[in-house]
Amino acid sequence: MAELRKDPTTRRWAIIATERWKRPNDLAKKKGGGKKKKFCPFDEGSEELATATVYPHFKHSGKWKVWVTPNKFPALAYEGVPKTTIKGMFTTIEAVGGHEVFVDSAKHNATLANMKPVEIEAILNAYRERYKFWVMDDRVKYVLIFKNYGPDAGASLVHPHSQLTATPVVPPRVVEEMEKGERYYKDRKRCIICDLIRDEIALGKRVAYMNDRFIVICPFASRFPFETMILPREHSSNFMDVSDSDIEALADIMSKLFRRMKDLLNDPSFNYLVHVSPQYAPNLRFYHWHIEIIPRMTEVAGFEWGAGIYINPTPPEEAARELKGE
Amino acid sequence: MAELRKDPTTRRWAIIATERWKRPNDLAKKKGGGKKKKFCPFDEGSEELATATVYPHFKHSGKWKVWVTPNKFPALAYEGVPKTTIKGMFTTIEAVGGHEVFVDSAKHNATLANMKPVEIEAILNAYRERYKFWVMDDRVKYVLIFKNYGPDAGASLVHPHSQLTATPVVPPRVVEEMEKGERYYKDRKRCIICDLIRDEIALGKRVAYMNDRFIVICPFASRFPFETMILPREHSSNFMDVSDSDIEALADIMSKLFRRMKDLLNDPSFNYLVHVSPQYAPNLRFYHWHIEIIPRMTEVAGFEWGAGIYINPTPPEEAARELKGE
Repeated sequence: MAELRKDPTTRRWAIIATERWKRPNDLAKKKGGGKKKKFCPFDEGSEELATATVYPHFKHSGKWKVWVTPNKFPALAYEGVPKTTIKGMFTTIEAVGGHEVFVDSAKHNATLANMKPVEIEAILNAYRERYKFWVMDDRVKYVLIFKNYGPDAGASLVHPHSQLTATPVVPPRVVEEMEKGERYYKDRKRCIICDLIRDEIALGKRVAYMNDRFIVICPFASRFPFETMILPREHSSNFMDVSDSDIEALADIMSKLFRRMKDLLNDPSFNYLVHVSPQYAPNLRFYHWHIEIIPRMTEVAGFEWGAGIYINPTPPEEAARELKGE
Repeated sequence: MAELRKDPTTRRWAIIATERWKRPNDLAKKKGGGKKKKFCPFDEGSEELATATVYPHFKHSGKWKVWVTPNKFPALAYEGVPKTTIKGMFTTIEAVGGHEVFVDSAKHNATLANMKPVEIEAILNAYRERYKFWVMDDRVKYVLIFKNYGPDAGASLVHPHSQLTATPVVPPRVVEEMEKGERYYKDRKRCIICDLIRDEIALGKRVAYMNDRFIVICPFASRFPFETMILPREHSSNFMDVSDSDIEALADIMSKLFRRMKDLLNDPSFNYLVHVSPQYAPNLRFYHWHIEIIPRMTEVAGFEWGAGIYINPTPPEEAARELKGE
């Protein structure tokens, strides 16, 4: 069983993933890279070999738009109770929860940049369904959906996919946002992100795209060139309550953004992650759900690890201008 | 002038480095990589072309063990006052301070794994001298020394080098450690790291090396395979006060560690960073200086960015055993 371990001197956690245990020889990089595998476990037909299908909710016929299956090498086990053990300074929680893979399309070479908006809608629908499923599991404190695209973003397979982790702790990144949001709310009785959106719209210079429901901004203190954030314009703290028309508007703006990123930046690797409120508090006045998109074109090195400060060579105002095509 | 910008919704800062401004074409990766440059700006003789030499403290004769020079593309400007501007939610500080490069050896192909301990001592001496220099500058709140080694750790030059940044803010990573340390100290009147060292020595299983003055542990919640931490065994919060015999003991243990890492892990890329107390409070009962060493053999992807939780496939207990050669 893998373990979640809390660092005694910082806010960090690590999952010591014994299921994926790597010995020195596995870690030492082979120069020249490996052979290309022809078999793709995410192509249509491969689902017969998978351990389970958790979405769509009917026995699949071999035809699906988005298929969700447990990760073959889960960082968190599905069975068991997340028992906490404290020995002196050392806190361990059994890494119980879930780890799922969304196969975003049946098409092997589909990308967010070449999918139709309606195909992106199908992915977002699947996200919403899996959030709704996991909210029923009391062992789970947080559900994180994320995507790794491209070799520099840690994607090991080309076939388009996203992932979901269900963890028995609220991740430190979210705790940090909640702390800031709650303090701001106590002072002003307003959501910090709602205020931020209002200010960014008034300023205009960091807004890349906007429609009736969503806004894409290049954050004021962007860590990475062309980092963006997609936010619902109306206050909402979770993804389960987004409506079908919200999903349509979101797919539309995502399609625009990822097409433009591909053209402008030569198909960059990127990560995105969906930040929502914790499982046990789906409706919070002081937390505003959002998607963070991190293009992986610059190195994270000693300064960033040591400081938690990021050196970004592209001002977000310029990034917004380029994304708009001005 | 580059700007330090504070993110309104998290603890993060970014340096928007206009001096290094990258347009989309510069960011889009050239497939196949660039040409190899023959000229090395860190080789003996090149110092004649550099803007300045700040160490050694005498007019160099063309012979030096360690040479320190301002970074040619500093992320922080040397001249000026770090003026703070707050406009609504947006806080900016002018990125004033310093950014230096330590050329760790005159030998182009020297590495920490093949240097003699006495050569590592010379680097550590230079670190101590530059800390002593920067403590005199009241504009500076923090001095961070770090090293990027190898292509996967963001090193753009082969010639062995380290870096120093002097920033007008205390970095969030250090603030976090100080908060934890201070809370622990208030409760128990003891340093959290002193207690941690005592417990790790008693347990033994995560201690890789130890001598009279220093200990190398694989942290309980290691984020990365073979992550290590070097700590002084006696309480000390800054590097300026280390004695010559401390430096000798530290160089000895660093030499052992980096030789073993190279052999065991096929010369991995790594970052290291020296965490000391802030500039204005060099002697703190609740902060214990240390070096964190991060081998770069695993990817940081969507889960890590979104959660601040790291999936580590190598238990630190195994890493310690392998480092010891058991």
